[in-house]
Amino acid sequence: MDKITETIKKITPLDYKLIKRAQVRLDSLTKPQGSLGRLEELAKLIVGITRKENPEFKNKVIFTLAADHGVAEEKVSAYPKEVTAQMVYNFLSGGAGINVLAKHIGARVIVVDMGVAEKVQGSGFRVQGFKDKKINYGTKNMATGPAMSKTEAIRSIEVGIEVFEEELKKGIDIIGTGEMGIGNTAASSAITAIFTKKPVEDVTGKGTGINGKTLKNKVEVIKRALRVNNPNSDDPIDVLSKVGGFEIGGLAGIILAAASGKIPVVIDGFISGAAALLTYHLEPKVKDYMIASHCSAEIGHKIILKHMNLNPILDLKLRLGEGTGAALGINIIEAAIKILNQMATFKGAGVCEKIKP
Amino acid sequence: MDKITETIKKITPLDYKLIKRAQVRLDSLTKPQGSLGRLEELAKLIVGITRKENPEFKNKVIFTLAADHGVAEEKVSAYPKEVTAQMVYNFLSGGAGINVLAKHIGARVIVVDMGVAEKVQGSGFRVQGFKDKKINYGTKNMATGPAMSKTEAIRSIEVGIEVFEEELKKGIDIIGTGEMGIGNTAASSAITAIFTKKPVEDVTGKGTGINGKTLKNKVEVIKRALRVNNPNSDDPIDVLSKVGGFEIGGLAGIILAAASGKIPVVIDGFISGAAALLTYHLEPKVKDYMIASHCSAEIGHKIILKHMNLNPILDLKLRLGEGTGAALGINIIEAAIKILNQMATFKGAGVCEKIKP
Repeated sequence: MDKITETIKKITPLDYKLIKRAQVRLDSLTKPQGSLGRLEELAKLIVGITRKENPEFKNKVIFTLAADHGVAEEKVSAYPKEVTAQMVYNFLSGGAGINVLAKHIGARVIVVDMGVAEKVQGSGFRVQGFKDKKINYGTKNMATGPAMSKTEAIRSIEVGIEVFEEELKKGIDIIGTGEMGIGNTAASSAITAIFTKKPVEDVTGKGTGINGKTLKNKVEVIKRALRVNNPNSDDPIDVLSKVGGFEIGGLAGIILAAASGKIPVVIDGFISGAAALLTYHLEPKVKDYMIASHCSAEIGHKIILKHMNLNPILDLKLRLGEGTGAALGINIIEAAIKILNQMATFKGAGVCEKIKP
Repeated sequence: MDKITETIKKITPLDYKLIKRAQVRLDSLTKPQGSLGRLEELAKLIVGITRKENPEFKNKVIFTLAADHGVAEEKVSAYPKEVTAQMVYNFLSGGAGINVLAKHIGARVIVVDMGVAEKVQGSGFRVQGFKDKKINYGTKNMATGPAMSKTEAIRSIEVGIEVFEEELKKGIDIIGTGEMGIGNTAASSAITAIFTKKPVEDVTGKGTGINGKTLKNKVEVIKRALRVNNPNSDDPIDVLSKVGGFEIGGLAGIILAAASGKIPVVIDGFISGAAALLTYHLEPKVKDYMIASHCSAEIGHKIILKHMNLNPILDLKLRLGEGTGAALGINIIEAAIKILNQMATFKGAGVCEKIKP
């Protein structure tokens, strides 16, 4: 727990002086003031987070954390549990959605086994960034008791911090969060219901594509998990241990570590959002370092974004996870900082400024 | 006019067989079906437009057309008229917003003088794609009579077609539309009011950043232009000649030529939207080749998009024009076709498919 407390302590408010200075620079560029809308807001935010007047994204990193969920045995997903490990191999061979989109934006993907139910092994992976940080072989079924022990919950966040610190040595300018784990929308819905105090029905969606009876069952299973475990909403570690997942804890650690290191955190969809929500309830000021990349098609995500007052950049009805939305969001944010860095000024280009009314 | 008629004749319906086949391919990729939402829709559309099962964007081209507007003398803009030429020089030096964003997405920018009020000359421009296609030294003031002659209106569309054809020889896989011209939101509002039958107030916005009295004056000037000219909404050439602009005519030509050449057209903001609207009223089936990149902060744009039933990819409160929103849109569309082309299939990656309910 010391590592978590220490990391949180290092999270400071943004540099609003620099944000003001970025605004002055933006207003000097050859465009009507404010005409690049959200791009200008994003550019300022990145300056305020990084404390760099001309930030650059040489190292873009997507962390894709994988883990299994005991609750999958309650048939809450459209896919069998084996898919978690299979998708990890797919990430490592470069064939998944996140591989394609990370390549598109020039980011590296770090795949982390936080708790896949089988041993991930092999050689000749095309993706070099694999980390074996397994906490356990999947969580336990939250519908019958706590998903993990308190020690495991704390450890999963600490491991997230470690993962970030290891990669920071290789260079990180911005990160995107991502995940994979059959059953993890159920865990995320439980977390969302607890922190936002919304009914389970309002925060439980189709996940990988369930409907009708299966969706109804999923809602019942989550309700049972909350009843059986009675998690304390004032204690995020208690919530994580009772209804969370190892990848969710890991992402929480990564988010805290990035914020403490003044690195912008681009949040992906619903599961990443649940991890972000958890960190927000550990320490509200971490929110200043978060950028919501998109609004997921998963219904609970909108509620998370509203709860944290985050305004997503994109709305493309994505619901894949892995960090795919975060990758696209990073690309827009990079466009924003290039505007700040590369555009000519009115003075430099000899362009007349606005007529004084 | 023959050139325009010929170009329109070559516009054919999309290939829906190939779109279906793209759907089958998308459903075979290692992700829950439909989980990449809008990206999947965009990938299919590009296949249907290009008739290529695995389309690639080697040559992305942004056409940024510039022209002056006689109506600027009515003080409808926040900037002096000289800014049009000054911004053209800025485009050619690589310092404008569109230069930065085109570079970000790996596109080339073709700057076309369609009717700037002064001669654009010089050497050592950093941007190689300059074309002098001046129809005239700006339009006339639409508030006192037609902005241009019928011959000029037809010629501006034909020049757009020529510009596209010249660039096609160098390779084009997708295009974005862009423009610059002090006074051109006034012309676009007039065009929008005519074709959508909406009141001038509902389609007239802040442009480069006017307010209060200046905005009220702009509305009055546009109303006067409609009264004085009485354009025929069933005759887009009449509309263009009476209240249009040379860059708007040029963009209309480019859009028609791209559609006839089976090249996707990514529409930028309000002025590009007005040009798109004009082509749509010349020939509705051109719409199938259009993709709306974003929803502009300029109020009339939403009305154009609704009128043509186009769903914008982005909503970033942009209102710069130049093709900046189109550039960002192209980047998302490129991500979409990479998903289609590069992701592994369930079979290929050895990942279990969905459990049959």
